[in-house]
Amino acid sequence: MDSRTGLPVVGMVGAGQLARMTHQAAIALGQSLRVLAADPDDGAALVAADVHLGHHTDLAALRSFAAGCEVVTFDHEHVPTEHLRALAAEGVNVLPGPDALLHAQDKQVMRTRLTALGVPSPRWAPVSTVEDIGAFAGGEWPVVLKATRGGYDGRGVWVVGSMAEAAAVVDSGVPLIVEERVRLVRELSAVVARSPYGQVAAWPVVETVQEDGICVEVLAPAPDLGEELAVAAQELAIRIATALDVVGVLAVELFETSAGLVVNELAMRPHNSGHWTIEGAVTSQFEQHLRAVLDYPLGATTAVAPAVCMVNVLGGEPGGMSFDERLHHLLAAEPRAKVHLYGKAVRPGRKIGHVTVVGDDMADVRRRARNAARWLVDGTGEMEESA
Amino acid sequence: MDSRTGLPVVGMVGAGQLARMTHQAAIALGQSLRVLAADPDDGAALVAADVHLGHHTDLAALRSFAAGCEVVTFDHEHVPTEHLRALAAEGVNVLPGPDALLHAQDKQVMRTRLTALGVPSPRWAPVSTVEDIGAFAGGEWPVVLKATRGGYDGRGVWVVGSMAEAAAVVDSGVPLIVEERVRLVRELSAVVARSPYGQVAAWPVVETVQEDGICVEVLAPAPDLGEELAVAAQELAIRIATALDVVGVLAVELFETSAGLVVNELAMRPHNSGHWTIEGAVTSQFEQHLRAVLDYPLGATTAVAPAVCMVNVLGGEPGGMSFDERLHHLLAAEPRAKVHLYGKAVRPGRKIGHVTVVGDDMADVRRRARNAARWLVDGTGEMEESA
Repeated sequence: MDSRTGLPVVGMVGAGQLARMTHQAAIALGQSLRVLAADPDDGAALVAADVHLGHHTDLAALRSFAAGCEVVTFDHEHVPTEHLRALAAEGVNVLPGPDALLHAQDKQVMRTRLTALGVPSPRWAPVSTVEDIGAFAGGEWPVVLKATRGGYDGRGVWVVGSMAEAAAVVDSGVPLIVEERVRLVRELSAVVARSPYGQVAAWPVVETVQEDGICVEVLAPAPDLGEELAVAAQELAIRIATALDVVGVLAVELFETSAGLVVNELAMRPHNSGHWTIEGAVTSQFEQHLRAVLDYPLGATTAVAPAVCMVNVLGGEPGGMSFDERLHHLLAAEPRAKVHLYGKAVRPGRKIGHVTVVGDDMADVRRRARNAARWLVDGTGEMEESA
Repeated sequence: MDSRTGLPVVGMVGAGQLARMTHQAAIALGQSLRVLAADPDDGAALVAADVHLGHHTDLAALRSFAAGCEVVTFDHEHVPTEHLRALAAEGVNVLPGPDALLHAQDKQVMRTRLTALGVPSPRWAPVSTVEDIGAFAGGEWPVVLKATRGGYDGRGVWVVGSMAEAAAVVDSGVPLIVEERVRLVRELSAVVARSPYGQVAAWPVVETVQEDGICVEVLAPAPDLGEELAVAAQELAIRIATALDVVGVLAVELFETSAGLVVNELAMRPHNSGHWTIEGAVTSQFEQHLRAVLDYPLGATTAVAPAVCMVNVLGGEPGGMSFDERLHHLLAAEPRAKVHLYGKAVRPGRKIGHVTVVGDDMADVRRRARNAARWLVDGTGEMEESA
């Protein structure tokens, strides 16, 4: 409890862009997010007032960070489970709890549990040798190898087309599971929130567009998604949130296939596929995550317009215009673009921000959002006569 | 320039709620607002990373604060003009500049200039004795006395009905002007922004509802305001911004009378009558103020919905439910309410936050916003069966 305001203190482990945007939401609620930053230059550490420096693998740092927080939550999934259990045993209100979060940390645990729940999943198996992989494939290559822990944005995932390629991954010594390569129509994401009280709220289901395993674009709502499939996706996400006792935001990344929905990944925190909610929904995923972990009533998840497009901004090649000049051009070219920069140094391929455009027509907002992002990436967007 | 992000540093003198909400906007633009706070418990000082402690009347503190800022701007009008001129002479980029800001600091300067510009104004006069006031009134009481400097939220304004009442104000020694008491239909506000390049942008004109000289409610757009009067108000505000060389946000508070528009007050900063733009317009006044003082292209000012209502939350009587409990009730009662709390201790009558509701119907959003605010003020809002 903050003695000056009488309002609760939420601590977020990790100080990347998710913590940065959660701090923005915390300000409106009268709070000031406490962040545990590994580096003083982390995106959230640059903008928050209550910054603790320390690493998320350091139990002493976590303990000191948690002291005085009503609740401790996460910007990422990388805190060791044994540390979370230790904190919880000492009375720290860790949300999502260690038993829930484990399903977002360990893909084998997640697959085992979702299979037991009867949730539609790819065919999969735990593997420890290349022979296991060969047996799973049964001559049907390629298959997908996934590190059970630590992967994100395409890292920790290998599509292998032969025993030799599989052997190279196995030899790296990373614990793996194998999955069939799903023939998919497209990728969707169902983002929901759940409070300790058990209240749940689901945003409209979105389409996510990936390139090289990295999400580059989110379309809200997913274009031409039938009502039946949309509701099925929301119900599936709510069922998982409830069964796993998730508290906070849960993103369920889905494959849409000709046979229906298949769960790809889970994340138990605000998620890239929910950034559009900042301007595009009555309640953003960042505010909702705070409301959920504080057991406040959840906010309305309705979209505020018929079409919203969010495009990630990946760092482009240096040289030419300065970043500030590129930003000038973007703001001139697209007065309706909402820009979110994460305070990160520009490196090629690194997610340094995103742009959202809200409007009435998906083709129009998508063109505008892509154009705006391109100005930031490589300074080659287009100026219109009028916007 | 921030060496870590390559993006500019904006400094805001004053660390109240306007700076607090400007910091939220700065975060999205990749920046971190630097604030000069008189007290470490000021609303913005509680949430910003780059806080300088010092008083806005201390030139040395202002100098040290300004070092390294691309631009210095303001949360309030109370910095002494001579300090602003000293900073500007030393090369600090002060925006709005001292010559512009003077018109928001000194009502006599403002009235003199607007009269010279032919801007519709109340009949007024500078006064120094009670006889001056009597001569101005000419038997037509009441008249309005205004302190030339330092008034806000009804402070520094006296409606006097007799020579004796006027004498009491004069005897306090405050420099005054006198104005006729305008017979008004209602109060409006035209909020615009202007960049050094000369670009201007106007939000829809709003109606402001006052109680005891304090703004309690803002309706956007102003209900049943004819197109002609709305455009006239926007043009008037743009004309004033241009003539006075304002950079940043300018709020022109207006009286609507049976004979047309009359200018009441000017503010050269984000203004209470523009808080609705956070959720209600494509670009908020806080982001726009940053864009304007940085000479970035301005953002779109279009409303995102047909009806927006903002209600100020004034501190209520202590006792009964805790503030956090009241917030719980509010969030449960109105899932569509957007709450903004300023991190202030609750004192009766003090502005501690505001609530905005966006929707299709003014009567509906107004009822919801008022109800939400009432939960926070005295814990007596109403729960609905469904929201």
